[in-house]
Amino acid sequence: MPIDKGIEKQIPRIIIGRLPLYLRALDRLKKDGYHYASSRELGRLLDISAAQIRKDLSRFGELGKRGKGYEIDFLIKELNQILNTNKVWKMIVIGAGDLGSGLARYRGFKDRGFEVVAIFDIDPQKIGREIGGLVVKNILDMCDYVAENSIRIAILAIPAENAQKLINELAEVGISSILNYAPIYIKTPDGVQIEHIDPSVHLQKLSYYLK
Amino acid sequence: MPIDKGIEKQIPRIIIGRLPLYLRALDRLKKDGYHYASSRELGRLLDISAAQIRKDLSRFGELGKRGKGYEIDFLIKELNQILNTNKVWKMIVIGAGDLGSGLARYRGFKDRGFEVVAIFDIDPQKIGREIGGLVVKNILDMCDYVAENSIRIAILAIPAENAQKLINELAEVGISSILNYAPIYIKTPDGVQIEHIDPSVHLQKLSYYLK
Repeated sequence: MPIDKGIEKQIPRIIIGRLPLYLRALDRLKKDGYHYASSRELGRLLDISAAQIRKDLSRFGELGKRGKGYEIDFLIKELNQILNTNKVWKMIVIGAGDLGSGLARYRGFKDRGFEVVAIFDIDPQKIGREIGGLVVKNILDMCDYVAENSIRIAILAIPAENAQKLINELAEVGISSILNYAPIYIKTPDGVQIEHIDPSVHLQKLSYYLK
Repeated sequence: MPIDKGIEKQIPRIIIGRLPLYLRALDRLKKDGYHYASSRELGRLLDISAAQIRKDLSRFGELGKRGKGYEIDFLIKELNQILNTNKVWKMIVIGAGDLGSGLARYRGFKDRGFEVVAIFDIDPQKIGREIGGLVVKNILDMCDYVAENSIRIAILAIPAENAQKLINELAEVGISSILNYAPIYIKTPDGVQIEHIDPSVHLQKLSYYLK
């Protein structure tokens, strides 16, 4: 059944947040040679209940078949369409320190729908250096670059200072999605979505299980 | 009301996973000068429904007061106790590349309950170098170090190859919690908890909202 994008408007962010996990688990099952996946198998891989998975996916139409489960290739295609990752989004990385360099060199983005096309820093010692095939650009040129290349996604890998100012500027030139590694609290500008990656949050989940 | 650790056994991982988010939001409200937080305020910060937050927290006893909400200092203390972060856990970082170096230099772990005490690599060019006050150790010495220092938590910041073998070895010498940055699927050894940090999962959540 084709997906009606119109009905998705009201879908809670928490459900949207689980779709990439389903996609990753399906990729794994596909690599392992499977053609169909049951909600139970997906649930076991992801530690999410089968009922929750069926409920989440049913928001997007009838994606599975009773008794057979989900056809993996089909569901991967549908999820990529829902998540807009049936194309490759150009991204910029801000900050050419350890983390930014690692992200610029990371080769795992492209087959998930993303590509780092430029990296920026404020430090004259870093500007002009090559990282992962990209030459570090001056952060003063960032807004022009974003506007000229219609970039929508930025990864923030800088220390806390000035991050808020930078985000406000980025929002003005067209960035609407930010993946933030900076350990800060951000006032999100209108029309911008921010995801935070915070290793301490994951560590605290792990330490719960430590005796 | 004191927390009875005995009643926590059955709490789903998905709830445990939200507790660090509550803790981070409470820290923010505290820094902003608040003494009490309602489930509605927490929910607004976290994009989680107030009802969900009240339901999650009620699993751990009566932590809030009707009409007043949660006393921030008290709830921070209780959550740290539940998550076992009322002490500082020693961690090792495996891999002294861009990401591992960044993690070894990161100063944000300590007041969240964690501390990087050693970093390991297999590359002779990296072994012996200083990163964030730590000298990179030979990965061949890792298992001895873990056993001698009773380390329970490891952060994996290495490429995909050999990761599975490494994890199996770590499990044998006492590591029970792994924060994994490697883009791989892992067969989790018995008694080990793994959390994955995968930027593509966050990016796909963001791209859903891109027109």
